[in-house]
Amino acid sequence: MLEFRVVARDGRARRGRLVTARGVTVETPVFMPVGTQATVKSLSPDELESLGASIILGNTYHLYLRPGAERVARLGGLHRFMAWHRAILTDSGGFQVFSLARTRAVEEEGVRFQSHIDGSSHFIRPETAMEIQRLLGSDIAMCFDECTPYPVTRDYAEESMRRTVRWAERCRRSRTGDHQAVFGIVQGSVFADLRKACLEALQEIGFEGYAVGSLSVGEPKETMLSVLEELAPCLPEERPRYLMGVGTPEDLVEGVRLGIDMFDCVMPTRNARNGALFTSSGNLQIKNSRFADDSEPIERGCTCYTCRRFSRAYLRHLFLARELLAYRLNTLHNLHYYLKLMADIRNAVEAGSFESWRKDFYERRSGGSS
Amino acid sequence: MLEFRVVARDGRARRGRLVTARGVTVETPVFMPVGTQATVKSLSPDELESLGASIILGNTYHLYLRPGAERVARLGGLHRFMAWHRAILTDSGGFQVFSLARTRAVEEEGVRFQSHIDGSSHFIRPETAMEIQRLLGSDIAMCFDECTPYPVTRDYAEESMRRTVRWAERCRRSRTGDHQAVFGIVQGSVFADLRKACLEALQEIGFEGYAVGSLSVGEPKETMLSVLEELAPCLPEERPRYLMGVGTPEDLVEGVRLGIDMFDCVMPTRNARNGALFTSSGNLQIKNSRFADDSEPIERGCTCYTCRRFSRAYLRHLFLARELLAYRLNTLHNLHYYLKLMADIRNAVEAGSFESWRKDFYERRSGGSS
Repeated sequence: MLEFRVVARDGRARRGRLVTARGVTVETPVFMPVGTQATVKSLSPDELESLGASIILGNTYHLYLRPGAERVARLGGLHRFMAWHRAILTDSGGFQVFSLARTRAVEEEGVRFQSHIDGSSHFIRPETAMEIQRLLGSDIAMCFDECTPYPVTRDYAEESMRRTVRWAERCRRSRTGDHQAVFGIVQGSVFADLRKACLEALQEIGFEGYAVGSLSVGEPKETMLSVLEELAPCLPEERPRYLMGVGTPEDLVEGVRLGIDMFDCVMPTRNARNGALFTSSGNLQIKNSRFADDSEPIERGCTCYTCRRFSRAYLRHLFLARELLAYRLNTLHNLHYYLKLMADIRNAVEAGSFESWRKDFYERRSGGSS
Repeated sequence: MLEFRVVARDGRARRGRLVTARGVTVETPVFMPVGTQATVKSLSPDELESLGASIILGNTYHLYLRPGAERVARLGGLHRFMAWHRAILTDSGGFQVFSLARTRAVEEEGVRFQSHIDGSSHFIRPETAMEIQRLLGSDIAMCFDECTPYPVTRDYAEESMRRTVRWAERCRRSRTGDHQAVFGIVQGSVFADLRKACLEALQEIGFEGYAVGSLSVGEPKETMLSVLEELAPCLPEERPRYLMGVGTPEDLVEGVRLGIDMFDCVMPTRNARNGALFTSSGNLQIKNSRFADDSEPIERGCTCYTCRRFSRAYLRHLFLARELLAYRLNTLHNLHYYLKLMADIRNAVEAGSFESWRKDFYERRSGGSS
């Protein structure tokens, strides 16, 4: 069960509210920090809460391999295991099987692959992916899909999309209980008609939410936006819409403009660990020597813990010295930036001023550089 | 300037209070977490505060090489640079020059060495070491000394000790202002008469505190204790006594028993990063497979953040997955253990029950194992 209500609209942009079966409220549009291995890298759950995160993403593929879904279940489920009591969405493992695992083989029945950790062999059926997610106990589970690579022929894209639909049916059938919502994933690569056909088939099966997969996988930015432009208006109005694995701050703004409600991406956390920091006037690379004596915070006026307490010079020092605190302070700042961006977007949509807000956003972002 | 007052005694053990020139109070006996590169690895200054740390140690050698003492001074000093507003003691760099740097050469004038970071050449005089510490702005500076290796001939130990005394005179002379206290370091290896001769010479020069150096550098534990047993009663009553680089929980207890007031050691923080955790009933290695499904905290009843929120099974998972949060949660626990141990010791000394507390401590510690 997953309640969802659109509470305001501004153009195609939607301001919504999602309530999980466990009673956790998620205000949308929302950004979900990625907590791959039962932790959003470097942060404690309390820090995530104080950043205002309401929902995070867990990676089924990683958790299945380590520590194992049955172990997590024995220990009370993923929420309890990682001491995170707000919402969790788990992906189906599909994307990771295709991007991380070794020697995979796609069959009608499922996917055979070798673990990137120890080379062990595994076979994941759509039913297995759902069972793993049930054991993890996430609030929202994703259908097992084939992440279509880019570029790909139209024939392969169609074949892959049809299989994803058949797998989605099997996922839907294998569902047990009402505590976990299940989202379908729209595939079809960059072919708008395939995307629409996929969505139609998924809607016939019926899901609590609809995700757009395999975008931002190498195609030009304009292609991604034009696929979304065509597909988004077809997504059911009354259900949450999730753009998977996307993206830059600009991508989030454009996604919202086209009617997307949910996003996840490793960008704010991964970039943080590489010293790339987001600010409203552009990005900066903290190891740059011009910050060596810079007593200013990353962004003046930013209210994150890092900016309230530390200078760019200190953060540069920590980063160059490879100190653990560097990754954490940078992550706190970048996630604060992303979550505050989404809060600003929600306010703008609610106030009916999204378009002027968006214009300001681009003007500010182009003002700075690294 | 450094106020120090012994407020209670129990046998040779002392319960004292130290007030820095900046007005920060440090209750002794005290353990100082090591913040080598302007950060206690993985922790924020707020976490250190909530653990109850009142004074930390900074490493002059590391900070001199990176980010540079003059840079730290330009940025407002070490306290401000790392956003730590309680007390800081800096070592003199002597120990690190002897343990980390490449191709060092000891001369009467000072020590020539190559940086372990980039191989660059440096020459540190006693006066340089004091100037670096002045630029860092620590509350307590240490004299530049030669860390005598073990084992060593009596002749070399004496030669080295005499040089350390001559360097101590130069350190004392080069002191500027009253804001930074300076401690002398007693050398003389395992030769009690050399240690006493060194102490006498240092007292003639006159310091705000006296440290015992080059113990726990490879000599048998009994040798360390017998040197301390002979030396400690000679240390001036009215000045703080600091046992450098020591040690295990047992070492701290024995140090206090013999009249030591201050300790520092990388053990709680380094062990944490290696998965070795302290408990009152012994140590445990978190990666041990017997913790795979263990829903208990590291130590039942422990009030640290880690034990209040997470299971051994989760900590084991984080550690095996090399997640950044592992190092931090383990460090929080180990430092909590050390700082709570010192608080318990202070209470016992103040209550005049140190000996019975000590007996209990050993009984509990021998109760567990990894």
